Amino acid sequence: MNDSSDTDLARPEPGEVGLVEVRDFVSTEPFAFDNGQTLPGFTLRYETYGRLNAARDNAIFIAHALSGDHHAAGIHSLNDRKSGWWNNIIGPGKAVDTNRYFVVCANCLGGCVGSTGPSSLNPATGRAWGIAFPQVTIRDMVRADKRLFDHLGVTALQAVIGGSMGGMRVLQFGIEYPTFVRRLLPMATTARENAQAIAFNAVGREAIVQDPDWHRGEYPKGGGPRVGLAIARMMAHITYLSDASMEQKFGRRKRDGAAGVEHAATFDAQYEVESYLQHQGQAFINRFDANSYLYITRAIDDFDLAGAYGSLEKAFREVRARTLCVAFTSDWLFPTAQNREIVLALLRAGKSASYAELVTDLGHDSFLLDSPQLYDLVRDFLAAPAE
Amino acid sequence: MNDSSDTDLARPEPGEVGLVEVRDFVSTEPFAFDNGQTLPGFTLRYETYGRLNAARDNAIFIAHALSGDHHAAGIHSLNDRKSGWWNNIIGPGKAVDTNRYFVVCANCLGGCVGSTGPSSLNPATGRAWGIAFPQVTIRDMVRADKRLFDHLGVTALQAVIGGSMGGMRVLQFGIEYPTFVRRLLPMATTARENAQAIAFNAVGREAIVQDPDWHRGEYPKGGGPRVGLAIARMMAHITYLSDASMEQKFGRRKRDGAAGVEHAATFDAQYEVESYLQHQGQAFINRFDANSYLYITRAIDDFDLAGAYGSLEKAFREVRARTLCVAFTSDWLFPTAQNREIVLALLRAGKSASYAELVTDLGHDSFLLDSPQLYDLVRDFLAAPAE
Repeated sequence: MNDSSDTDLARPEPGEVGLVEVRDFVSTEPFAFDNGQTLPGFTLRYETYGRLNAARDNAIFIAHALSGDHHAAGIHSLNDRKSGWWNNIIGPGKAVDTNRYFVVCANCLGGCVGSTGPSSLNPATGRAWGIAFPQVTIRDMVRADKRLFDHLGVTALQAVIGGSMGGMRVLQFGIEYPTFVRRLLPMATTARENAQAIAFNAVGREAIVQDPDWHRGEYPKGGGPRVGLAIARMMAHITYLSDASMEQKFGRRKRDGAAGVEHAATFDAQYEVESYLQHQGQAFINRFDANSYLYITRAIDDFDLAGAYGSLEKAFREVRARTLCVAFTSDWLFPTAQNREIVLALLRAGKSASYAELVTDLGHDSFLLDSPQLYDLVRDFLAAPAE
Repeated sequence: MNDSSDTDLARPEPGEVGLVEVRDFVSTEPFAFDNGQTLPGFTLRYETYGRLNAARDNAIFIAHALSGDHHAAGIHSLNDRKSGWWNNIIGPGKAVDTNRYFVVCANCLGGCVGSTGPSSLNPATGRAWGIAFPQVTIRDMVRADKRLFDHLGVTALQAVIGGSMGGMRVLQFGIEYPTFVRRLLPMATTARENAQAIAFNAVGREAIVQDPDWHRGEYPKGGGPRVGLAIARMMAHITYLSDASMEQKFGRRKRDGAAGVEHAATFDAQYEVESYLQHQGQAFINRFDANSYLYITRAIDDFDLAGAYGSLEKAFREVRARTLCVAFTSDWLFPTAQNREIVLALLRAGKSASYAELVTDLGHDSFLLDSPQLYDLVRDFLAAPAE
């Protein structure tokens, strides 16, 4: 800590965000996608934690990943048994301290949890857009996000923070709105995926579009390619963990009631890891839209800062924010080298950037998990001057 | 080389096996599976290369992997544009030298390329067995294989050689028939999978059994869960390669005719790696049976020598053969540590065993690919005395 009197003595026990309200921001200005298609407007569903200060400059934007949404912290009702997806890092006295900051999280454009995306109604047909929805890019997402901050009257973002695809949105935000954002905190991310990461997304998409219930994207809400989407999620989930963490968590343990070798052939789940993945798949199809999965994975695969700007240094040329990029040693989806590459390019471009590598067994999803080391990094980075 | 006059001067230019005949061995003795179910007999489809010597002791058994078959070398007709799957290592003057050895490869029990498996006719119903076929284990496979060698009048195997699941069969063969086999040459294998490898197989199985065309394993030949099987294969194929090899082979290259960002959304293959994987999936469903895929992946997942024998040392207690285990640095499906573990346990059990680790970028499938280093290891190991 830079200032122990500030951080240790004055800091109360971390508390909880508590009850939060879901809001919808409706932008009624036309929005032009990168691909040239235009919508007359769009909705972003969002939540806020903490209060905007008088100068309206204490905001922090939390950018969620592929399967995340606007509900990053707190609970929606007193019966909620589960808090938002990043509740461990956001709250009064937590690393992203809602006593100091006005924290905003929004479901991304193209998403399926209240924001406009392929499952929204296409006014031209009265049915869901399906794959007539414009292809969305990471840049489209952050340009939509920016409208939300304009609507909220925010004059500056103290930080944009996010892991995985959230990290891509962080980088793009810093490029697109250099004077608006003070700090960038991408984690477990990449400035462009390698072939292996594209390959995993490609298989997930194939599982969806080859599902006979996909019908080229035209299916009733709650229906559609549930099998394909579950398969995509099960496979992707493996890439979010690590060999070591799966070994610790499951090893070769069989589930209760698993058949022994003396039994007839069965292809039901026999190992705990099998039923765990099935559960992940089933839980996902009840909360996520298959078309959004197609759109967002495509946006992730197509994100390529070096390709879009000529080189990674050129991409970062206008960036003014200070950057801290956090990577995790066991992340094999977006390996540490890809995170280091971001920081090296920022430094070569003359920017203020640092890199932290946390030793963990927990794989790509490490950024979401309880980690006092990560909390300290985030807290210190937010507390230090931005320039 | 131990003897340069033998290996360098006397060795002719490597030649080709050439035309080979497919044979069927029909065992008419009842066969009891590990799970207690019994078949009145079974068929193994096999090929042989080279000649059995007068002492009938110059045989080598090639054990194929999950998606392999009996056709390891040579061609079936002069129009064949593709040779057997391990043609690079088997042939006159090659590492597995058919001028010296009588080389045998058989489609495994449970397979779908001529050997008895779930797609074979169940005499009780007149239809394919489907999932009424007994659950097969790696030990069942090698006990069936042994009957083939008894039928051929082979008195000793100079070696059993195989990679991946083939390596599991190699180890089990050495355990089951210690006086029959002189050398074991497992590659890119494991004495038991970790949770991550089970997880990938589990997702593949789920893609198959959730395919509406699976019908609990009852489908016409050539029909069935083609989508699920293709998805399973596409995903598995990623695990056979490596991050580095995919990056070299495909990178982020788009395929010809790929849509630019200015186009409407499309979820057809855009990147070369996407269409490559689609091709792998399509090619596979035209040659492989989905039920066999379920059975064989289950046999692989259930293979656990330490679990079955109390410990890996105990599993190897009766082994007499000399072992060389070859691992590949970029193999992340069955990592080098799992191969080393086999050799360490053999050494602790007092056996003659050595370990070779080849530095390669090509991932799990390295054992199948052109590698003079691997050829030299195999040749030297076969040439050296077995005890």
